[in-house]
Amino acid sequence: MVRQEQIEITTTGRGSIEITAEVNAFVRGSGISHGLCNVFLEHTSASLMLCENADPSVRADLERFMARLAPDGDRLFRHVTEGPDDMPAHVRSVLTQNSISLPVSGGRCILGTWQGIYLWEHRLQPHVRRMTLTVYGD
Amino acid sequence: MVRQEQIEITTTGRGSIEITAEVNAFVRGSGISHGLCNVFLEHTSASLMLCENADPSVRADLERFMARLAPDGDRLFRHVTEGPDDMPAHVRSVLTQNSISLPVSGGRCILGTWQGIYLWEHRLQPHVRRMTLTVYGD
Amino acid sequence: MVRQEQIEITTTGRGSIEITAEVNAFVRGSGISHGLCNVFLEHTSASLMLCENADPSVRADLERFMARLAPDGDRLFRHVTEGPDDMPAHVRSVLTQNSISLPVSGGRCILGTWQGIYLWEHRLQPHVRRMTLTVYGD
Repeated sequence: MVRQEQIEITTTGRGSIEITAEVNAFVRGSGISHGLCNVFLEHTSASLMLCENADPSVRADLERFMARLAPDGDRLFRHVTEGPDDMPAHVRSVLTQNSISLPVSGGRCILGTWQGIYLWEHRLQPHVRRMTLTVYGD
Repeated sequence: MVRQEQIEITTTGRGSIEITAEVNAFVRGSGISHGLCNVFLEHTSASLMLCENADPSVRADLERFMARLAPDGDRLFRHVTEGPDDMPAHVRSVLTQNSISLPVSGGRCILGTWQGIYLWEHRLQPHVRRMTLTVYGD
Repeated sequence: MVRQEQIEITTTGRGSIEITAEVNAFVRGSGISHGLCNVFLEHTSASLMLCENADPSVRADLERFMARLAPDGDRLFRHVTEGPDDMPAHVRSVLTQNSISLPVSGGRCILGTWQGIYLWEHRLQPHVRRMTLTVYGD
């Protein structure tokens, strides 16, 4: 059995938003109790990550790390048509993920105790980000 | 239903090659219209990425970024038997992906408007790179 | 058909441990000969990687690379409650993977000749790390 759905999340600019509840709601609604759920993000300047969801300072530090690694306005980059945060956003996307598969058991994703699924917006401005959720199993 | 196929792509040395058409041809030929397609690369000095396919300067900037992060001949590295680009290729591979799952609907991969699947050769010399494509669904 | 199992591996502190044999044993035991196997790690301070398994100096160099990129005690980080290796471990996890899907054929994972699946412990101390293995196909 395969179930698929598209969802959209509007970001508020650079930063990460937990989407574990949205993914679990989809899995629950699918009627599939046992299998795998894939989250796929249809963008190349945002990404997905699995991250600690207990202390928000972890995600703040990840932002600081990425800002040091690929700073906005980095003179290395020539693709600057959409602004100084355009190419750094692509770099951050390539270094993280746009497709993550999660085991499903008992009608929900099996994650670690302090592990959450995040949509990570890498552009400075808010964007509408589209994801395809696919679950399969029995 | 599961369908699987191995394909080989000969690279021309370091750089990225779009393989979206090859993946979609496999999905179309499988007769599966709804599900997921996994692309798996059987190498550790090349990788897969999802990247913008509109402006080639994005991929040129990604090369420049990786060359700064893990330069060929970096004196940090001791694994140098295959040359100065050997260990940087492994680093680039570990920082990107070797396995990507893509949602399938209507007999093709659902990607963003400007999102393509790329095989990224990290070695300087051309190589034959093997991938296993697996699609499942109904 | 879907089969799922949880396994635990006790690490000896920072470093990578090959788990290809454990994953293949699970696939063999499932009776599934053709499909995909997903390995999912339920932690955010360790990760999974596909890496060359011929020369251990590759993995030693990867450690050195990560230690340069996100050094323990890096003054950039504010999340330091669990020690100087806490936040670097989250960074290493985000830059690699926590979920990898592998094609299965003939009752085993199809990997490249010198490609192994590794559990990568990023904390200095030993930890018990839990993974969910899911295989599906026919």
